[in-house]
Amino acid sequence: MASGEVYRAVAVLGRGAVAPDAPILTGDDLGVLRGDGVFESLHIRDGQPWLLEDHLARMARSAAGLGLELPDRVALTELTGQALAGWPRKREGVMRLVCTRGREDGDQVTVFATVADVPRAVLHGRHHGVAVLTASLGFRADARQQAPWLLGGAKTVSYAVNMASLRWAASHGADDVLWLSAEGYCLEAPTSTLVWLVGGRLCTVPSERTGILAGTTARWLLRHADRVGYEAGEAMVTPAELAAAEGAWLLSSVRGVAEIRTLDAVPVGSAPPTVRLREFLGFSGPPA
Amino acid sequence: MASGEVYRAVAVLGRGAVAPDAPILTGDDLGVLRGDGVFESLHIRDGQPWLLEDHLARMARSAAGLGLELPDRVALTELTGQALAGWPRKREGVMRLVCTRGREDGDQVTVFATVADVPRAVLHGRHHGVAVLTASLGFRADARQQAPWLLGGAKTVSYAVNMASLRWAASHGADDVLWLSAEGYCLEAPTSTLVWLVGGRLCTVPSERTGILAGTTARWLLRHADRVGYEAGEAMVTPAELAAAEGAWLLSSVRGVAEIRTLDAVPVGSAPPTVRLREFLGFSGPPA
Repeated sequence: MASGEVYRAVAVLGRGAVAPDAPILTGDDLGVLRGDGVFESLHIRDGQPWLLEDHLARMARSAAGLGLELPDRVALTELTGQALAGWPRKREGVMRLVCTRGREDGDQVTVFATVADVPRAVLHGRHHGVAVLTASLGFRADARQQAPWLLGGAKTVSYAVNMASLRWAASHGADDVLWLSAEGYCLEAPTSTLVWLVGGRLCTVPSERTGILAGTTARWLLRHADRVGYEAGEAMVTPAELAAAEGAWLLSSVRGVAEIRTLDAVPVGSAPPTVRLREFLGFSGPPA
Repeated sequence: MASGEVYRAVAVLGRGAVAPDAPILTGDDLGVLRGDGVFESLHIRDGQPWLLEDHLARMARSAAGLGLELPDRVALTELTGQALAGWPRKREGVMRLVCTRGREDGDQVTVFATVADVPRAVLHGRHHGVAVLTASLGFRADARQQAPWLLGGAKTVSYAVNMASLRWAASHGADDVLWLSAEGYCLEAPTSTLVWLVGGRLCTVPSERTGILAGTTARWLLRHADRVGYEAGEAMVTPAELAAAEGAWLLSSVRGVAEIRTLDAVPVGSAPPTVRLREFLGFSGPPA
């Protein structure tokens, strides 16, 4: 194939691989009528999804939060294999594994996996860092703790506010958003987890107290922080504290690690070890 | 057809009517991957959508909030006609008119309309009222006013929290939820607008100050309140004030008007004129 060509692949549970341009969802699928479903984004490297078990575990937690009957790990793992059957082994990609509540009058979930190239803007942020703006979500950091109806910690497909936040950032010349709580604590980004380095300690925001998503890539990094010479911990942090840290990053399965270069136009970090973290996480492909 | 049979119809912009069981959305449609789209629910009566112009106006506002290129009114009106071509004229129904951002690498929105029977639970609530629980959204009533990224007032398909709120109510033996702000004001229900009667005045919650959805059915009722002998107004209200009102209702295009019989198990209203309002709004079909 020509190098400029877009690669895509799709597989549907119970059907296997289908043509990427073939419609697979009916108009009454609650995934599109109500954003009623859960998903995971996985990094495809060496022809395989990275951290598959971690993602499947989180997807199961998300599904439990929504009362969705997610198929078991064996079936989901088989589905990822079907979606990847024709994917070039050397080609980096992003897989979306999706489970919706299915048709409105039905009793079966809709489950499918898509694979696509990593967007160029994501590759650019990975290698050149990102300019980030803060934006309040309006509620206190603990608001979702006793409110299961707010679906804290569940990765649903209802990302309209996430996408609107990113568009708002772009319209103000920035690359990404860091959501704040009403009292001014940093929470997470619309599609990424916040990690920062202070006093030799890699930190992230506690997910259980705040209802943010437990980031798969960030958790993996903190679990193995000693291998890059750091301790690991959880903390609440303000934008001012973040700007004074040695470094701060947005982590996700697709982007890997993107250095926060500025936060509300204020430079962040002093000699942040971005390249070391990126290579340790295995996101060392050519820059965009 | 047998009376127990389920009626469904679907039409896709640019294609016309399609078989209701035919898939129409690809796996990379941002409507399902990101809940990135807008919709309207319309009441089908006498073979036509009721208040179509009001719904199309609100859909255009929603689309503007998301930066979506919604097709014009002529095209959308034609689409509703295609979806209704085979719908029995005497049969009440609910239409969903949906516009998603389309495919991930594409530049065209996905637009379709579905028609289905009104769910039995909705008919039941219309005729027998509903037991409602309050649940906080966690943010102050004015939190969305200066935060366009929170999409206040936009009817997106990202309804996962709306659906979770309704499931939470059901799991506690109730029929619906009334969302509260952090400081304890009533806002709206997950799929309905709050209206109450106090001192001869039909009231609803101001949408611009609070970022709630401007309810099409509620607005129509208040615009014509004098025809049922009431004044009309907007106000902020607490659950305690609501319980002391002459009556309180949840209004939506599909349910019409459902009397709030209890709020957090406290009886609401004194001789509320529910039948009069229901007939005035034209929801006078046989009870479920």
